Amino acid sequence: MPLNPLLDQRLLKDLLLVLDLAGTFVFAISGAMLGVRRRLDIFGVMVLSFAASSAGGIARDVLIGATPPAAISDWRYIAVAAAAGLVIFFWYSPLSRLQTPILVFDAGGLALFAVAGAEKALAFGLNPLMAALLGMLTGIGGGITRDLLVARTPAVLQGDLYAVAALLGAGVVVVGHLLGWPVVPTAIGGAMACLALRLVAIRRGWSLPVARSDEDQG
Amino acid sequence: MPLNPLLDQRLLKDLLLVLDLAGTFVFAISGAMLGVRRRLDIFGVMVLSFAASSAGGIARDVLIGATPPAAISDWRYIAVAAAAGLVIFFWYSPLSRLQTPILVFDAGGLALFAVAGAEKALAFGLNPLMAALLGMLTGIGGGITRDLLVARTPAVLQGDLYAVAALLGAGVVVVGHLLGWPVVPTAIGGAMACLALRLVAIRRGWSLPVARSDEDQG
Amino acid sequence: MPLNPLLDQRLLKDLLLVLDLAGTFVFAISGAMLGVRRRLDIFGVMVLSFAASSAGGIARDVLIGATPPAAISDWRYIAVAAAAGLVIFFWYSPLSRLQTPILVFDAGGLALFAVAGAEKALAFGLNPLMAALLGMLTGIGGGITRDLLVARTPAVLQGDLYAVAALLGAGVVVVGHLLGWPVVPTAIGGAMACLALRLVAIRRGWSLPVARSDEDQG
Repeated sequence: MPLNPLLDQRLLKDLLLVLDLAGTFVFAISGAMLGVRRRLDIFGVMVLSFAASSAGGIARDVLIGATPPAAISDWRYIAVAAAAGLVIFFWYSPLSRLQTPILVFDAGGLALFAVAGAEKALAFGLNPLMAALLGMLTGIGGGITRDLLVARTPAVLQGDLYAVAALLGAGVVVVGHLLGWPVVPTAIGGAMACLALRLVAIRRGWSLPVARSDEDQG
Repeated sequence: MPLNPLLDQRLLKDLLLVLDLAGTFVFAISGAMLGVRRRLDIFGVMVLSFAASSAGGIARDVLIGATPPAAISDWRYIAVAAAAGLVIFFWYSPLSRLQTPILVFDAGGLALFAVAGAEKALAFGLNPLMAALLGMLTGIGGGITRDLLVARTPAVLQGDLYAVAALLGAGVVVVGHLLGWPVVPTAIGGAMACLALRLVAIRRGWSLPVARSDEDQG
Repeated sequence: MPLNPLLDQRLLKDLLLVLDLAGTFVFAISGAMLGVRRRLDIFGVMVLSFAASSAGGIARDVLIGATPPAAISDWRYIAVAAAAGLVIFFWYSPLSRLQTPILVFDAGGLALFAVAGAEKALAFGLNPLMAALLGMLTGIGGGITRDLLVARTPAVLQGDLYAVAALLGAGVVVVGHLLGWPVVPTAIGGAMACLALRLVAIRRGWSLPVARSDEDQG
């Protein structure tokens, strides 16, 4: 007997919300950890939590005209980010040893945000190329803002195979949209592709090439 | 005999505009002073004036979809910011000795912007938690942008009891809104609460805690 | 015999698009060159290409409420920026010797963006002062974002006569609008004025004054 389709729909929506908030949580942790390392006060740590978890989605929503952004109009995102900030503020030392689990969770957040960002951009009528790029921006924008707030060049611009994984996940969603694939399996496929590429890149130390330049940093 | 209510309304509006422009002026001065210290040219000093005085309100307006932002559509804000920039550019040395009056005026600007920002966010239908946070953002966004433009970590993230005062002022407005208090006395109360907390924090050197971390800055 | 007016219109529109994309290309090159010098990976170089070429127009469009911004909704802008990024990534060393042609092209991009930005702001009903300033922002916003992404104080804030040239070009457009001059010759005049001022400033080493300050950098 098939599931009740309405119930199914509601379950799916709840599942997506839970995943979205889980992504928010792990990204917020990355922001809070950087804030503690840079000796920010408790407010600064929570600003970095929120920025790392939400700036990508906020940038996407402002660019496509979906104001106020979801991270602003729904209190649950900031509540989750604040919780992550407080956890890190008070238990930084024990948690900072869990590097590998945090990297894995972060890869999960990246996969989810990239896929959800591409879906939302398509829903707002963006062309496929830009929808894929906005999906990527949703995934990496938080980390960029987090790094800019402590005045350092964003890590994602320097060698790691991170944005490319986000672009892969978002790209799968967009290609599926163009070819008329069913939405949910395509989204799952995109997220799996992003996650797999990111995890392999972490394990093997894959990185992107840097150009040759005969000059000093200028 | 009561005042003519229409006259009263108009007086209030004029008063609010004067206060808003006064807040713009003191914030612009903080931006211009940083610009001079970092040896920016006259144009750079005026950009920092404008950014310090208006970036918080612009960010709030972009996030709630109130475009073009007031600081862009009303020429008086940029005129006031430019005037502050020119004053500091030409009389930096004598004015830079007036540290205490400037801190007091800056606290006044913070109080006003936080309250006005929360009112505007409520008027645009934001939920109470986010309205309070957007009020805070209106107060502190200018200083954050000012600091980012000279590539330093925003001072507000590092120890001072500054954002918390803004949040207190905005929070009073939001609580009053939820409980149906009259608007004007609530706004005055919020501004006074913010101002009082900020001034006491300056005088007593209160600051926010910093997390313990066994690592160097990373 | 006069030209067919419809054909004329279409030619003009094509010409403007070509000029706009040319401006995008030269600005993207300035971003890519900075990215290579700072040893960003190939993705980082392309992000700086896109940011340098499009952030000014995106900021203008977000501020006036024209979302999604043209640089997001039209794939040609990002394609041109990506092409410039790839060219610089693979041929940085030979191209980095062409300093003078690049400065001249950059001045051309500045002139075009300033004029086009002011026209668009006027078309969206901004007041003349703000239209001129948004024209300037369209011209200089890309360079500011490019510099912030590598955590350095924007070059445009430090001495060069660059923003003033953009403001002159945008100002000519706005004055012409107020006085009812015909659009196309006014736009050409504004672009020529910006270009001429910028080129003379480069050749003669003109720069803006810096304020006297008895203090160290703070």
